[in-house]
Amino acid sequence: MQKPYVFQEIPTRRPNTPLLDRIDSPAQLRLLNDSELLRLAHELRAFLLFSVGQTGGHFGAGLGVVELTIALHFIFNTPEDRLVWDVGHQAYPHKILTGRREQMSTIRQKDGLAAFPNRDESPYDTFGVGHSSTSISAALGMAIAARMQEKPRKSIAVIGDGAMTAGMAFEALNHAADTGTDLLVILNDNDMSISHNVGGLSNYFAKILASKTYNSVRDSGKRVLQSTPGLMELARKTEEHFKGMVAPGTLFEELGFNYIGPIDGHDLPLLVETLGNIKELSGPQFLHVVTQKGKGFAPAESDPIGYHAINKIEPKPKVQDTQPPAAKKLKYSNVFGQWLCDMAAADDRLVGITPAMCEGSDLLAFSNQYPERYYDVAIAEQHAVTLAAGLACDEAKPVVAIYSTFLQRAYDQLIHDVAIQNLDVLFAIDRAGLVGEDGPTHAGSFDLTFLRCIPNMVIMAPSDENETRKLLSTGYHHQGPSAVRYPRGSGPGSEIEDSLEAVEIGKARWIRQGKKVAILAFGTLLETVKPIAETNNYTLLDMRFVKPLDAEAILNCAGQHDLLVTLEENSIHGGAGSGVVELLTQSAVSIPTLLLGLPDQFIEHGKPAELHAEVGLDTAGIAESIAQRLELLGMTPDKTGTLD
Amino acid sequence: MQKPYVFQEIPTRRPNTPLLDRIDSPAQLRLLNDSELLRLAHELRAFLLFSVGQTGGHFGAGLGVVELTIALHFIFNTPEDRLVWDVGHQAYPHKILTGRREQMSTIRQKDGLAAFPNRDESPYDTFGVGHSSTSISAALGMAIAARMQEKPRKSIAVIGDGAMTAGMAFEALNHAADTGTDLLVILNDNDMSISHNVGGLSNYFAKILASKTYNSVRDSGKRVLQSTPGLMELARKTEEHFKGMVAPGTLFEELGFNYIGPIDGHDLPLLVETLGNIKELSGPQFLHVVTQKGKGFAPAESDPIGYHAINKIEPKPKVQDTQPPAAKKLKYSNVFGQWLCDMAAADDRLVGITPAMCEGSDLLAFSNQYPERYYDVAIAEQHAVTLAAGLACDEAKPVVAIYSTFLQRAYDQLIHDVAIQNLDVLFAIDRAGLVGEDGPTHAGSFDLTFLRCIPNMVIMAPSDENETRKLLSTGYHHQGPSAVRYPRGSGPGSEIEDSLEAVEIGKARWIRQGKKVAILAFGTLLETVKPIAETNNYTLLDMRFVKPLDAEAILNCAGQHDLLVTLEENSIHGGAGSGVVELLTQSAVSIPTLLLGLPDQFIEHGKPAELHAEVGLDTAGIAESIAQRLELLGMTPDKTGTLD
Repeated sequence: MQKPYVFQEIPTRRPNTPLLDRIDSPAQLRLLNDSELLRLAHELRAFLLFSVGQTGGHFGAGLGVVELTIALHFIFNTPEDRLVWDVGHQAYPHKILTGRREQMSTIRQKDGLAAFPNRDESPYDTFGVGHSSTSISAALGMAIAARMQEKPRKSIAVIGDGAMTAGMAFEALNHAADTGTDLLVILNDNDMSISHNVGGLSNYFAKILASKTYNSVRDSGKRVLQSTPGLMELARKTEEHFKGMVAPGTLFEELGFNYIGPIDGHDLPLLVETLGNIKELSGPQFLHVVTQKGKGFAPAESDPIGYHAINKIEPKPKVQDTQPPAAKKLKYSNVFGQWLCDMAAADDRLVGITPAMCEGSDLLAFSNQYPERYYDVAIAEQHAVTLAAGLACDEAKPVVAIYSTFLQRAYDQLIHDVAIQNLDVLFAIDRAGLVGEDGPTHAGSFDLTFLRCIPNMVIMAPSDENETRKLLSTGYHHQGPSAVRYPRGSGPGSEIEDSLEAVEIGKARWIRQGKKVAILAFGTLLETVKPIAETNNYTLLDMRFVKPLDAEAILNCAGQHDLLVTLEENSIHGGAGSGVVELLTQSAVSIPTLLLGLPDQFIEHGKPAELHAEVGLDTAGIAESIAQRLELLGMTPDKTGTLD
Repeated sequence: MQKPYVFQEIPTRRPNTPLLDRIDSPAQLRLLNDSELLRLAHELRAFLLFSVGQTGGHFGAGLGVVELTIALHFIFNTPEDRLVWDVGHQAYPHKILTGRREQMSTIRQKDGLAAFPNRDESPYDTFGVGHSSTSISAALGMAIAARMQEKPRKSIAVIGDGAMTAGMAFEALNHAADTGTDLLVILNDNDMSISHNVGGLSNYFAKILASKTYNSVRDSGKRVLQSTPGLMELARKTEEHFKGMVAPGTLFEELGFNYIGPIDGHDLPLLVETLGNIKELSGPQFLHVVTQKGKGFAPAESDPIGYHAINKIEPKPKVQDTQPPAAKKLKYSNVFGQWLCDMAAADDRLVGITPAMCEGSDLLAFSNQYPERYYDVAIAEQHAVTLAAGLACDEAKPVVAIYSTFLQRAYDQLIHDVAIQNLDVLFAIDRAGLVGEDGPTHAGSFDLTFLRCIPNMVIMAPSDENETRKLLSTGYHHQGPSAVRYPRGSGPGSEIEDSLEAVEIGKARWIRQGKKVAILAFGTLLETVKPIAETNNYTLLDMRFVKPLDAEAILNCAGQHDLLVTLEENSIHGGAGSGVVELLTQSAVSIPTLLLGLPDQFIEHGKPAELHAEVGLDTAGIAESIAQRLELLGMTPDKTGTLD
């Protein structure tokens, strides 16, 4: 085979791509001959490198599926045939080939292309993704619909080996074969999710790849190249009987799929030939493709985790070199990572658990220092939480580090296995609130609501880095389920104390005593609202606890002010502010209250600052909302604080 | 082997069980000899039949594990060794043998034994269960804790083949082998969950059982009876190479377990021998045991679904025979089942989906009438929801029938796959609110809260049977995600209209116009509160919609009354009433409001009426709450309605 050219650098000027420039839809791609397809792969990789270099974004996954993407659109009649990309990190080449080449410069920007496939963006994006492991279920649904409608269209799910560990992928595989529909599942095996993979399935894939059958499969390829059922079946039985110790795909065959592979996912002619043959088969098919994340770009090939996503390349690196680097602010995840190491040093009962987000949640240092107390359970949020529950039953002290949006996957386990039994599990919830460029699939907009209704939970929303550490310690020392939620990115840069002591549960922190308006801030929007409180001499509290609420402080504020304002980066529906008005209502206390938080809509991607402005949660927006409410209530805004 | 005696009838008098009567803990059981163990199994089965006959409860599963339960407690040093029963339907024999024999008469009753294992009830109940498929994760957590603490204790998960289809069981299996801990997973294979099993895994198990290796395994049993690693490995390789087409347990071996079995789960001496040998092995072990649900009771052996659980046996059947049976009230699930058939007849795009709850959610008639549009996906809630999303992408009209408590398992899929994409999926949410004897693991106390924060959702809470049908039709015709939640059991018996028309979205139904107090009822507590409204001449609304709320009606009520009362069978935290006060707050409308709903605690099991009284949601409790609030507000309760 012709091996893909390996780039050493990311082009900073748009490369010359005459063939690619002619492809405005897959229909045009289907007119190319074999050598043109190979040329297209080269141009596509060059353009992808250039465009992601210009914008930043997901990087390695797309490079790994350049050949697969071309082959799929060449063989299948997209968008009539339904192509579902799992997670969607790898969909950039797909976007380039489906009419969005010239919009790639807008990816992940407000009003630009989304980071992931998006049904509103293109008919080629058949299913919106972002979380892993949904593709088999979705493609199966489409296959069933096709059968009901007596349409011959095919459904294809492309799923990474990392995503295969999630339970819902297994649920879908288990069900799919039973339906007998024309579903093709393509396992894109690059031995990588975002972190390194974990578990029996990963070892199983490794064993398949180490076997001799891998090298010989292209020559024999009998299951793909023949379609006479009787002969096929005989060949299959014979093969199974004699294949000896390594039986590629037995696991998937046992679940009822026709397993084909593994084949080299960078061998474009082989991919085209294999997919062409598979297209003629009916019933559930499973194609195992081996690819390399970051393929065709030398630095990414050797460091696929580091090149999972990149920031955009600044145009003048030489000038940059002469400037001193800006002091790097600690991210909230780093605050957690440091706290985890410190608490682990102080308490050898601590166990740290992550569902495949070692780097994202910053457990790297912990995993190196305490490997025997570190558990990366793979993409398996449900298991992560119930594993923690089991540990807590026997006097270990589990800390589950999880993104807010992924905790949604373990909601039942949190309720049924942790909270009902009042077990001592601490949830360190990262990426709470809006997350920026990744968009609505990754936003953590609901955790305060879906946690607040669960009995036994203590829920905390720290306002800065030092508070994050304090509240993590508080949750850790509390005997029972607790959660600390903090946002993506960095905070105001507060000085972090070494202490691992708890603060008093259910007590707010008074930031300033003012008049007329009392602002009850939950979480990191405290900084945003500080100037408003100071300028207008309003009272400001850092509430710290969403549950239990500081009822004394709230009722006290209600008695001394004309308006309460609650502030949170969570849906207003059922959120922390909702808890405040429930308390006031049940206490039969009447005071005008303004609830500020996320509106009842999914917020598209963009820069965090742009999004905060859009939803009125920047300083100007908050000030405006308060002013409007005061006006509605007939109270003139008081800038001096001297009038009463 | 000596086969278990098969009972033809459920004993109505306590059987003579001299041996069982001496067993107050497993330590005493461990003193018995082989023939005494067999005798104990017989007595245990007799007592189990008698006691469940007296109380009602889960039935078939316990009968199927009589021998396994005895063998486990005989071989393992419980409670020091940790025994985790999955789901817990099958834990009655375990309860009888672990000091709770004389309390079995209180099972599922208020303040009596719980229906499921419960950590507060006994140290032998190592993990509280109710939902399926949690046991491997929990037992793995315990195994890791044991290793950290350098304790030699073992951890054992007993999981049914039905529960193995759930994704989280697979997630746990995938992770377990990686840890190398002393975990024993026992697959209790009875080809049954509550419905018949579905999918590739089920077929796989069937294939194993059909193979010759099943019969010969006891004689060879080499992996169990030897523990020399070198020899074992050689034997294993040889065996694998020659075993031909059927390779029992390959799937589990591929995931890194040492697979043993399948063995006959009613052969007590074989179980004792096998478990004794396994106990000496280290690392993750997988024992495949084949049992029969309802074993030893003839009617249950032949109808295991019908005998999953039974009602208590009335003492005088002959008198019963002479009385005409009371007219059987339609359950809410039957209302749904009938509506589903009717709507399917009217619209051939409709697809009905259930995660293994065909009978419970009453899809039986639909599955018979429309088998090609019926999908039982096995215990796989996550897949069920994303499958529906995929169907909705291609113009099918999926209806997902799911219990409120199990929807918690698919929360992320509802948000990420359905709501973000605004797909047209109807959720028919059964068992909303308190469920009675099954207790807190099965209560549907949170759905209004966790759904209300999700953009694009339409959420409905019908007040009776006819409203349930109307609102199901409304959700079905609505283009977008919607949910109708209704309780377990039967309603007031309202006459059900044939119509399949929608009602206006977001419009409440005025039940009566009164004075001073306006009661906003969400759902079936409407009936409970009617007498109060009538006696006191209060205004009463059947709100129908939790989202969108009928803002006009609510603000109208606020303007004409002194007190609003919201009523729902959902957590007050973030629930429908919370939505009402959010609306009032954001509208700057001030009116005293009383929020009635479930308190912030898990409610233990008991009869629904007892539980409603306990939480103040019976008529007396609601009247009392309203009277107290009126008194607090200085308003004398007005019984006549003539004063203003």
